[in-house]
Amino acid sequence: MNKTYTLQEIAVLLGAKVQGDPNCVITGIGSLEHAKPGEISFLENPNLRPLLNDTGASAIILKEQYATFANKNYLIVENPYLGYSKVSVLFNDTPKVEVGIHQTAIIGKDCEIDETASIAPLCVLGNRVKIGASVRIEAGSIIGDECEIGADSRLCANVTLYHKIKMGQRCLIHSGVVLGSDGFGNANDKGVWHKVYQLGKVVIGNDVEIGANTTVDRGAIDDTIIEDGVRLDNQIQVGHNVIIGAHTAIAGCVGIAGSAKIGKYCMIGGGVGINGHIEIADGVIVTGASAVGKSITKAGVYSSGFSAVPHRTWWRILARVMSLEDLVNRVSNLENKHEHT
Amino acid sequence: MNKTYTLQEIAVLLGAKVQGDPNCVITGIGSLEHAKPGEISFLENPNLRPLLNDTGASAIILKEQYATFANKNYLIVENPYLGYSKVSVLFNDTPKVEVGIHQTAIIGKDCEIDETASIAPLCVLGNRVKIGASVRIEAGSIIGDECEIGADSRLCANVTLYHKIKMGQRCLIHSGVVLGSDGFGNANDKGVWHKVYQLGKVVIGNDVEIGANTTVDRGAIDDTIIEDGVRLDNQIQVGHNVIIGAHTAIAGCVGIAGSAKIGKYCMIGGGVGINGHIEIADGVIVTGASAVGKSITKAGVYSSGFSAVPHRTWWRILARVMSLEDLVNRVSNLENKHEHT
Amino acid sequence: MNKTYTLQEIAVLLGAKVQGDPNCVITGIGSLEHAKPGEISFLENPNLRPLLNDTGASAIILKEQYATFANKNYLIVENPYLGYSKVSVLFNDTPKVEVGIHQTAIIGKDCEIDETASIAPLCVLGNRVKIGASVRIEAGSIIGDECEIGADSRLCANVTLYHKIKMGQRCLIHSGVVLGSDGFGNANDKGVWHKVYQLGKVVIGNDVEIGANTTVDRGAIDDTIIEDGVRLDNQIQVGHNVIIGAHTAIAGCVGIAGSAKIGKYCMIGGGVGINGHIEIADGVIVTGASAVGKSITKAGVYSSGFSAVPHRTWWRILARVMSLEDLVNRVSNLENKHEHT
Repeated sequence: MNKTYTLQEIAVLLGAKVQGDPNCVITGIGSLEHAKPGEISFLENPNLRPLLNDTGASAIILKEQYATFANKNYLIVENPYLGYSKVSVLFNDTPKVEVGIHQTAIIGKDCEIDETASIAPLCVLGNRVKIGASVRIEAGSIIGDECEIGADSRLCANVTLYHKIKMGQRCLIHSGVVLGSDGFGNANDKGVWHKVYQLGKVVIGNDVEIGANTTVDRGAIDDTIIEDGVRLDNQIQVGHNVIIGAHTAIAGCVGIAGSAKIGKYCMIGGGVGINGHIEIADGVIVTGASAVGKSITKAGVYSSGFSAVPHRTWWRILARVMSLEDLVNRVSNLENKHEHT
Repeated sequence: MNKTYTLQEIAVLLGAKVQGDPNCVITGIGSLEHAKPGEISFLENPNLRPLLNDTGASAIILKEQYATFANKNYLIVENPYLGYSKVSVLFNDTPKVEVGIHQTAIIGKDCEIDETASIAPLCVLGNRVKIGASVRIEAGSIIGDECEIGADSRLCANVTLYHKIKMGQRCLIHSGVVLGSDGFGNANDKGVWHKVYQLGKVVIGNDVEIGANTTVDRGAIDDTIIEDGVRLDNQIQVGHNVIIGAHTAIAGCVGIAGSAKIGKYCMIGGGVGINGHIEIADGVIVTGASAVGKSITKAGVYSSGFSAVPHRTWWRILARVMSLEDLVNRVSNLENKHEHT
Repeated sequence: MNKTYTLQEIAVLLGAKVQGDPNCVITGIGSLEHAKPGEISFLENPNLRPLLNDTGASAIILKEQYATFANKNYLIVENPYLGYSKVSVLFNDTPKVEVGIHQTAIIGKDCEIDETASIAPLCVLGNRVKIGASVRIEAGSIIGDECEIGADSRLCANVTLYHKIKMGQRCLIHSGVVLGSDGFGNANDKGVWHKVYQLGKVVIGNDVEIGANTTVDRGAIDDTIIEDGVRLDNQIQVGHNVIIGAHTAIAGCVGIAGSAKIGKYCMIGGGVGINGHIEIADGVIVTGASAVGKSITKAGVYSSGFSAVPHRTWWRILARVMSLEDLVNRVSNLENKHEHT
């Protein structure tokens, strides 16, 4: 924190072209709307162009075509949002933690904890847990027997891992996440449910981020798998034996039923429901508030959501939809009359 | 607990008119259906009027028009549900807690904790945390560096606050809530996601209640803001840089995407999805199971939900909806024939 | 773990007919696709029949009609999934825990804890809590005053119970579950919300399983009730005063608004929303991604979900639906012209 950079230094990091003063000192990041002198901002959304006139930012990351004021400092890049993401690393103020195992943490038998890892107060590790280099386990997190956490991964406070979860390197797991709870397996015998014990694991690749209060069930027999580079937002439910392909991003409140297989490089919008035992191809985009009932075999954009309109309008539309059968019959009658005239 | 009140005492609290015996002793609250002698009940929903005949309640809070039995005790008010809410305070049996810091709590450096606050067992406070008068932090809650909790606020068990969360007075935060997790910021570079570090805060006003397992992400650059008097139910996801206006109430399972701005005095029904970067005006009501894809600029009631019907009926309707294009063409054909006849 | 069974032993457990070698030794369970020698598999989904040819499994649980290879070992049953569930018990590898109260657990006053129960590290029990025989409370779980947990129930790590929760025997409560948070009760007075204190309890029957991060609110006055044998998946929200009938199963991400009453032997699909103050009859099935706005009085299957189609197709359909009124008018015009010709 309180680090400063010259615009030139940031330009080198971003591979950007400087237009303006390369010696301008940057002390932080600000939004176009609220940036103060010393702060760098960015323009990604063209609708926000008018803010360029008035922003208090000392420099702006943007595409060449928008760098139109002679007296402003610009960093010109092809992908301003990517440029901004790289600058955000410089000013990241997530608190540092102390290396080592806090005296109030409870550690099971035969664990292998790298000496560069930090285990915060009141964490509980089961037996035979393996913790890689520079891993950071924050307060109150609980890790079951035989879990493995790869180097440089971070578990935020109050994360829960059941037994035998395998996690790669550089993962970031937010608070309230539960990994490895039982899948929803129930066999029915004359109306009464018998539990199917869940014997699989959860296997998470490298560079995966999982948002707050998201849950990932362990597999029934085979494993639930989240591949490299996947980004899961908050409050997502991932059922047992789901496979999420590499570099897929899934927004908040999505529910994925058991054994669904989602391809690589997909983007799933907020609140989407995905049926069990279906496959979604690589490169599929599903817009928010849709439901995916059947497999999707081709890349492309898919939707099924309605957007709210005034209640009375909706009420009339609903009535029309529910009586569509009747309208179809009326049209058929008219067609018949035409044939006979 | 075990306090009792005369009907007269409660009438004064409510500003109600007593019809019947003002000395009637009230020992608790009961529903119209299950109330026992000594208990006070209320009638809000007119559909429940028939229960007035048979209820075991010793007194009933209701509107004047329903106070029709000469031998019953009534508290007559204009807003019976509001009256009931005030009586519920009297009989609130939430367990009391001891003032002070439990010996198993872990407190960071340079915290300012009011001596009337209570910090329960196994809480963890980071550095430079400020805790106001009579604040109550229940067991297992974890509070990051530089958080500020205003007077009389209560964090229930197992709440997680990341760093730099600002909370006003008299807030009630339920178990499993996560405040300040990273917003879902990812910049794409040839298919691979780069994390956008989230530098904003979460700022919560006075008199806010947040339900169990709800998550509120910190802002990307500016803050995520929840204004005074907001009520959030359980399992809600609030994305980064969302602003929720004062006195808005949001029911369970709602998802609010990043940078959405919701007005004051709104009511959002259960399971609603709200798109990112849109604005909802003051005084908007969205009915349950709807999705809000675009900005709503006028107060009023908005909907887009369908309600379940028998599966075969729905199947036929779906088929008709999916082939509406065809129906429109058939109508156009008929119209053309008419013009040419 | 590492137990083995002969096929004959398993056949006795399942009441199955052995076809093949009854002395075949079974060392674990495998899916048809990935089973290795020594493992037993099952065929439930007829679509997976082709896998029977190539599976590495040493034995397969299936219906008689599929037991067609002379050289394979089969356990023939009527309900293969039920058979598999019984075998899953044999190979359940959930870690064992030590009986007794861990020294870091915090126990309130006047608790009654059976000596066969296990209370893990860093649990917190309030006052007057009753814990039955062989109950297992895992690390970091917090239990409020006057809760009662019946024999053989298991609370996984980081579960939170508010005060006065009653739970039956053999329940399984997954991590992140919150039971007994306040229902969403708010009385409005000129735009400002007044809290309705929630005085009811949560009462849970025997043999109930509740999935990770599911929340169940306490009743406002009467109790929220989950009857025997209910199965709740992850991320479900159960509002105050909801009643869920015995042996009902509810999939992930379902939201149930306050005072809804769901019958016995129902199945509710993933992501369904259920309105408050309605009743759903016994034996109702609601398919995923539907909303239930009104009471359902008859057993049967109910739906209201749309499934995603290519975005352009959906866009055209949406436009047609939103202008249905216009189409109906055009048909009426045609009908009028016909009458007058």
